[in-house]
Amino acid sequence: MSAPHRVVIVGGGFAGFNAALGLGHAPVEVTLIDRRNFHLFQPLLYQVATGGLSPGDICAPLRHVLKDHHNVRVLLGDVHTINIADRTVTTDTIELPYDTLIVATGASNSYFGNDAWRKFAPSLKTIEDATEIRSRIFSAFEQAECEPDPAKRKPLLRFLIVGGGPTGVELAGAIGEIARDTLRGNFRNFRPEESEIMLLDASTRILSPFHEELSDKAERALIGLGVRCRTQVRVKAIDAEGVDIETITGMQRIESRTVIWAAGVKASPLGQSIAAQTGCETDKGGRVRVLPDLTIPGHPEIYVLGDLANLDLPGVAPVAIQQGKYTAKAIQAKLAGNPVSNFHYRDHGTMATIGRKAAVADLGGMRFDGLPAWLAWLFVHLLYLVGFRNRVLVALQWGSQFLTYNRGARLITDDKD
Amino acid sequence: MSAPHRVVIVGGGFAGFNAALGLGHAPVEVTLIDRRNFHLFQPLLYQVATGGLSPGDICAPLRHVLKDHHNVRVLLGDVHTINIADRTVTTDTIELPYDTLIVATGASNSYFGNDAWRKFAPSLKTIEDATEIRSRIFSAFEQAECEPDPAKRKPLLRFLIVGGGPTGVELAGAIGEIARDTLRGNFRNFRPEESEIMLLDASTRILSPFHEELSDKAERALIGLGVRCRTQVRVKAIDAEGVDIETITGMQRIESRTVIWAAGVKASPLGQSIAAQTGCETDKGGRVRVLPDLTIPGHPEIYVLGDLANLDLPGVAPVAIQQGKYTAKAIQAKLAGNPVSNFHYRDHGTMATIGRKAAVADLGGMRFDGLPAWLAWLFVHLLYLVGFRNRVLVALQWGSQFLTYNRGARLITDDKD
Repeated sequence: MSAPHRVVIVGGGFAGFNAALGLGHAPVEVTLIDRRNFHLFQPLLYQVATGGLSPGDICAPLRHVLKDHHNVRVLLGDVHTINIADRTVTTDTIELPYDTLIVATGASNSYFGNDAWRKFAPSLKTIEDATEIRSRIFSAFEQAECEPDPAKRKPLLRFLIVGGGPTGVELAGAIGEIARDTLRGNFRNFRPEESEIMLLDASTRILSPFHEELSDKAERALIGLGVRCRTQVRVKAIDAEGVDIETITGMQRIESRTVIWAAGVKASPLGQSIAAQTGCETDKGGRVRVLPDLTIPGHPEIYVLGDLANLDLPGVAPVAIQQGKYTAKAIQAKLAGNPVSNFHYRDHGTMATIGRKAAVADLGGMRFDGLPAWLAWLFVHLLYLVGFRNRVLVALQWGSQFLTYNRGARLITDDKD
Repeated sequence: MSAPHRVVIVGGGFAGFNAALGLGHAPVEVTLIDRRNFHLFQPLLYQVATGGLSPGDICAPLRHVLKDHHNVRVLLGDVHTINIADRTVTTDTIELPYDTLIVATGASNSYFGNDAWRKFAPSLKTIEDATEIRSRIFSAFEQAECEPDPAKRKPLLRFLIVGGGPTGVELAGAIGEIARDTLRGNFRNFRPEESEIMLLDASTRILSPFHEELSDKAERALIGLGVRCRTQVRVKAIDAEGVDIETITGMQRIESRTVIWAAGVKASPLGQSIAAQTGCETDKGGRVRVLPDLTIPGHPEIYVLGDLANLDLPGVAPVAIQQGKYTAKAIQAKLAGNPVSNFHYRDHGTMATIGRKAAVADLGGMRFDGLPAWLAWLFVHLLYLVGFRNRVLVALQWGSQFLTYNRGARLITDDKD
């Protein structure tokens, strides 16, 4: 009997995690490497950032969810080198040989070359980002309570979200709810309802990948929560006191102590490394142009999935999940000598939530909004959340939040002290 | 009508928070100042440190729980100065006058003058401490999985807890459960059941404030979870690789990558400041010797409560809670011109939990252990937990953990990245 076929998966996000699940019990030896010991359900990260859920509720320990797949080994590590000629990957502590490699290290936020802005306007990709943003939002209200001068209170109670995609819209809506409902009656010096929340976007409308009708409905729902949408606006500078924007009528300064970046995306640097070694192409966001079977030209043993891959598909969870599942099947088919068809994305649509009983959904041409879209959003997100325990905890907290408007996980934490 | 009587409470722990609750709706103007925006239920902090609960589950936002007490204002701030002659307290941003002052800033861990040890052996007082310890515990197992040499794996799988009080016992028991149950089958290179957990204490037995019979039962329960108790042991040095201890037979070195400090306690520095201004006494832990009515000699307008006060009572939550309630009543009685009796602690007993279905309790001379003590422990802790939402979430997670042995909140997080 020959040695087992070794599959190394780099990244335990939606793509890599689903590939590992799909290869569980298959006649291959799988190693899944991730920098974190948990799979993160990113679509609900904004709820951690706004105090509705706790970090543990949207994370599943990778080892636990894969423990019964005895052919899958999980390693905590940061892969810094892929050596394609030698067929090895290297972390800080270990070098691993592979027969098939799956790279699914995703993307992080891009500040379009202005990395100095990160300090003033954090973005939302990791659990640490979420708890940092949560601290900033709730600290701003706390500082406002200590500020007797109403003029100085203004920038403390003004929240800017840069980027009108689903994350920006969901964050803005949640902050709107915090100001209007969650914190109502919590302060003695000011009314949190006075807060200004602004969503800035460079294009002509928010949620530009959605149908125009839904963008419009989303904007109206946001207005109802006190959020002002400003489109055709470009951010030119960000500092500790606010932002400078360019509008169609000229430059403008907006003072704000809480700015959140929900704009650009840039692929993990491993994409560039693969391109340099194989001559494959990357797009301007650093994503690898993959073949229709998700491998790269000349290297049928290397799969690139999820946000690191460019196949002209949106960078959303369902694409990554389907790619992970496809890849697990494709590897098994190849090993069995069966033909492998190309990856085909089954688009079930897109949705975004804006607040209580408000969401927009575009499911295969069927567009709806309001309560039905919100219920659909709740259902789909609970369904895809990994781990039964997490599903129950999240459902329960949503129920409690719906009834009481309270957000119990609104801790201001830090690493000092 | 005269100006309202101003009460300033420094510290939102058990004592300060209960004083604020008790003064809600009373004819006084209350300001509660805390460094954090939440009340922390410290007795369950070890469960956050061991991945059983999320930080949000044991914290209640102070503003939210006090929002209907319209005479109570909550301020986020760090009180650095109390000026007793002028009757003011000062934070970074504000100076507040008071008519009555309640100081309840508690205590932190003491390294007996060896503050350099803190870096290698964190202690458990804040939410950040808990997530830091959680990261260390679960990272040690992750590193062991990457370590092919069994000899080098040993110190990664050895956990030392210094201090055999309730916190140390509860931590050691929880780590025992993690190694034997939670992580069973999660690793491919080693069996987590091989881990060694050691509880070190300087006295002749663990849980020395409890009756000897219970110490004995606790030790046997710990042994059942793979925890070794070493008493009459003094820690002489701690570094990144392990600890040096002094035993009755001489010095010894124990290699361990995960050391947790659950030993000494030292009072908040505000105690020293009060002593310096009023000439009142402090004990060697820095706690203020208070009069039987919890005020300090010559200053009936200053109450010192909880872990900052020395009234020859143990530093446990029930003492602080009762002192907070007493003080609220005493202030109202004084203002109404009624006589005020001294504080009297109603001791309902002590308890500590060791693991699934194992605990020890000493309730007013009635000593019991095992399942009844464990159920009593669960009941009392759920009862005292602040906030209905938290109670339900904690109950649910305990139920899930009991049935599945899983700990869903075992995230390794950090502040880099």
